[in-house]
Amino acid sequence: MSIVTAGEDLLGRLIAEGSIARPSAPAAETLWSQRFAQRTQRITASMIRELLKLTEHPDVISFGGGLPAPEVFPVEEVRAATERVLRDHGTTALQYTTTEGYRPLRELLVRHMGRYGVDVRPENVLITSGSQQALDLIGKLLINPGDRVLTEAPTYLGALQAFNAYQADYLPVPIDDDGMDIDALEAQLRGGPKFVYALPNFQNPAGVTLSLARRRRLVERAAAYGIPIVEDDPYGQLRYEGEHLPSLVKIDAELHGCGGGERAFTGNVLYMSTLSKTLAPGLRIAWVVAPETVITKLVQIKQGTDLHTSTFCQYVAYEVARGGFLDQHVRRIRAVYGERREAMLSALARHFPRGVRWTRPQGGLFLWVTLPKGFDTTALLDEAIREKVAFVPGAAFYPCGGGEETMRLNFSYAPPEVIEEGIKRLARVIERKRIP
Amino acid sequence: MSIVTAGEDLLGRLIAEGSIARPSAPAAETLWSQRFAQRTQRITASMIRELLKLTEHPDVISFGGGLPAPEVFPVEEVRAATERVLRDHGTTALQYTTTEGYRPLRELLVRHMGRYGVDVRPENVLITSGSQQALDLIGKLLINPGDRVLTEAPTYLGALQAFNAYQADYLPVPIDDDGMDIDALEAQLRGGPKFVYALPNFQNPAGVTLSLARRRRLVERAAAYGIPIVEDDPYGQLRYEGEHLPSLVKIDAELHGCGGGERAFTGNVLYMSTLSKTLAPGLRIAWVVAPETVITKLVQIKQGTDLHTSTFCQYVAYEVARGGFLDQHVRRIRAVYGERREAMLSALARHFPRGVRWTRPQGGLFLWVTLPKGFDTTALLDEAIREKVAFVPGAAFYPCGGGEETMRLNFSYAPPEVIEEGIKRLARVIERKRIP
Repeated sequence: MSIVTAGEDLLGRLIAEGSIARPSAPAAETLWSQRFAQRTQRITASMIRELLKLTEHPDVISFGGGLPAPEVFPVEEVRAATERVLRDHGTTALQYTTTEGYRPLRELLVRHMGRYGVDVRPENVLITSGSQQALDLIGKLLINPGDRVLTEAPTYLGALQAFNAYQADYLPVPIDDDGMDIDALEAQLRGGPKFVYALPNFQNPAGVTLSLARRRRLVERAAAYGIPIVEDDPYGQLRYEGEHLPSLVKIDAELHGCGGGERAFTGNVLYMSTLSKTLAPGLRIAWVVAPETVITKLVQIKQGTDLHTSTFCQYVAYEVARGGFLDQHVRRIRAVYGERREAMLSALARHFPRGVRWTRPQGGLFLWVTLPKGFDTTALLDEAIREKVAFVPGAAFYPCGGGEETMRLNFSYAPPEVIEEGIKRLARVIERKRIP
Repeated sequence: MSIVTAGEDLLGRLIAEGSIARPSAPAAETLWSQRFAQRTQRITASMIRELLKLTEHPDVISFGGGLPAPEVFPVEEVRAATERVLRDHGTTALQYTTTEGYRPLRELLVRHMGRYGVDVRPENVLITSGSQQALDLIGKLLINPGDRVLTEAPTYLGALQAFNAYQADYLPVPIDDDGMDIDALEAQLRGGPKFVYALPNFQNPAGVTLSLARRRRLVERAAAYGIPIVEDDPYGQLRYEGEHLPSLVKIDAELHGCGGGERAFTGNVLYMSTLSKTLAPGLRIAWVVAPETVITKLVQIKQGTDLHTSTFCQYVAYEVARGGFLDQHVRRIRAVYGERREAMLSALARHFPRGVRWTRPQGGLFLWVTLPKGFDTTALLDEAIREKVAFVPGAAFYPCGGGEETMRLNFSYAPPEVIEEGIKRLARVIERKRIP
C-alpha cells in the first residue's frame, strides 16, 4: 500500500538528511527470560499438548488427547445456524458485546440448569471462552500465591495449569472407583484449602464418578468448614450407563435453601460446564454458575482478561441449541462414545496382561490404567510411540507427585476397530516391559 | 430427559430410606468476598463498560464507547467465508486446535507484517482472543506485584485493567500532540519500569501520534536501558491524513539488526495488533509479534488461560482475509471514519466555546477534549446524560490521577448528522457549566 512506502521513504529521508542518526553497531540483546515474572516459573510446557502433536501423524493411534470425535460434529446444523445468524443479526453478531455474554444464551443455560434441578437466573451465569477460561478466572478470583487448592489426585491437568499461574499449592485427596476418599478429604479440609476443586462425573483423567453418598458428604463438610467448592462438569451429559446423579451445586443449594422462586441463589458451590463436548470445542463456549456477588467480580476480571467471549460464536451456539437440537445430538454422541467405551473395555480385557487394572467409566471420554508397581509409564511412552500408539502418562495428573505406574486412555476419538488395534499395540509394549 | 428424573428420584429415595439425612436448617452463608484474592482489590467495574450500556438507549448519542461502525462490517463476506469454511474444513474448524493459532492465519499475518517492513516468521506470531487477551498474557508474563509499567498519561484503560490484575504500579509520561514527552520519558526510564507500554498511532484515548523522531528516541533509549517496549497498534491502518510512520518494532529491528533472511527476530519490542477494527470485533482475533523465546512462554501461559482462540473464528477470519479483501475493506473504513472525523472536528469548531481545546487525530477512533481548568468532566457527565449525550471522562485514563478537565470522544460510531447533533448538545452542557 502506498502509505507504507511513504513511511519507509520518510525514515530513509530523515536518515539521509542527518535529522536522525543511522545506527552504527546493533544494540545489545534483550535478556527476555530475566524479565519474566516469578509466576512463570510454574508455567511450563504441557505433556498433553506435546502429545496432541502426535495425533497429527496418521500412523500413530493416539489415546493421548481428549478430542471429541469429529464424526459427531453437527457441521450442517452449525452451517444453517450461522446462515440465520448472519441474515437476522449480522451486525450485532460481529460487534462487541457485554462481558457477561449474550443474554439469550445465558437464559437458555438457565433453563438447561433448571432441568437438572438447579434454579438460577441469568445474573448467575457467565459465558466463558471455554472451561479453561473459567478455571483461569476462578484462579484469578480466589488464589493468593501459596494458597492451597484441595484436588482429587489424579486431577485435571488443565486446572493445575490454570491454578499454577497464580502460584497455588495443593492438598491432594486420593480417589477410588467412587471418587474422593472421604476420610482423606476430611483431613485435608482441616488443612485450610482456599477451595475444593472437584470433577464428580466421569472424572478427567480417571473416569470415576463420585458416589451420591460422597457427594452429599463433600458438600456438607465443605459447607461446615466454610470452604467453597468449584465443581467442574464437562461430561455430565455423556453418561453411557447407570443413573444420573445430582450435581454438587444442586445438593448444596438444597443444603443452603437457596435458589428457586424469589430466593437468591447463594450457596457454596461454583459450577462450570461447557458446550465443547456436546456441541463443538472449536466455538470455545462454556459457562460458570455462581452467586451474583461472585459473577459480578468474575465479570470485572473477565473484562480485563479478554473483554468478552466471541459474539459470533455465542450467537451461533445459541442458534444451534435453541430449538432443543442438543438433546437429540447428545443422544447420538452417547451412542457413538458408548460403543467406543465398550470397544476399549473389551479390547483391554482381551489383550492386556494380568496384573493390570483399569477403571470402568460410566461416561465421559477417559479411562485409567494402573500397571503393577515398578512400571514407569513415562519411560513406557517412548516405546509405545515406536510401536505407533500413544497415551498420557498418569504422573502428569498428580499435583504432588505419584502415579508413575498409571496412564490415561481416551476412548472417544478413535473408531472401535482402531481402538482394538491400538490396545493390541499397547499390550505388546507392556508385555515386553513386564517386570518378571 | 429421563436420566435427570432418575437422578432426582434416587436422591429422594435415599433420603426417604434414611440412607441420607434430610438437612434440618439451611447451612450458613459462604462469605465469598472474604475469600477473594488480594489482587481483586485492584479489579473494579469500568466506567467505559457502564457507559456502553448507555449506547443501548436509542435517544442517547454516545461518544463514549469505542465501537466500530456496524455499517462497515462485511457481513456478506463473513457469510460467504463461513460457508466455504464449513464446506471444506467443517470438522477441523469445529475441533480443538493448537494454542499458537491456525497456521495459515499466522502465515498471513507474517506477510501483513512484512508489508510494513517487519520480517518475522510464523514462530514469532501468536493469535490471541482479542487485543485485551494479548495485554492480559503480557501482564501475566512480565509483571510481578509492585512492578512499574511506564505508560503514556492518559493511556488505554483496558491496558490498566489488564495490568492492575497483576498488581502493577505505573510510571506515567505526559503526552502532547506528538505523543510522549521525551524528557519525561528519560526520567521515568531511570525509575526502572518493567516495560514501556506505548500506543504510537492515534493513541487511545487522546488520538495523538508519536512523531518519527520521538519513536526513534523511545526505541533507542529503552534499548539503552534494556527495558522492553510493548507496542499496541490497533488502529495503525486507519489513517485519514499524513504519511504512515514506521512502527516501533520495525525501528527496533533495525537497531538490533534482527529479523529478515536467516537472522532470527529478536529485539526489544513486543508488537500487538488486532482484526477488531479492520474486520470485526465480534470474532475476537488479535495477534502478538515477539521473539521466539517470548512467544514460547506466552503460548504456555495462553494454554492455561483459554487453551486456544476459537478455531471457528480463526478459520473464518483467515478465509475472509486471504484473498486480499481486507485491503479494499480498509479503504472503505478509512473513507467512512475519515468523514466522521471531519464531521466531529467541524462541529467542535462551530459549537464548542472558546477556551476548549481538542486534538486533531490523523487516524483511529478518538479525539481528546481539554476544558479550561476547574471543569470536572465526571460531574459534567451527569448533566450530559440528562441532555442525552455521553462521553468518557478523561480521569479514567490516567494511571496516577489527573485529567479531571478532559474527555474522550469517539467519532467512528455515529453517522455525521448524529455527530453534529451530539456535539451541539455537549456544547450546551459545557456552556451552562462554564466558569465565569
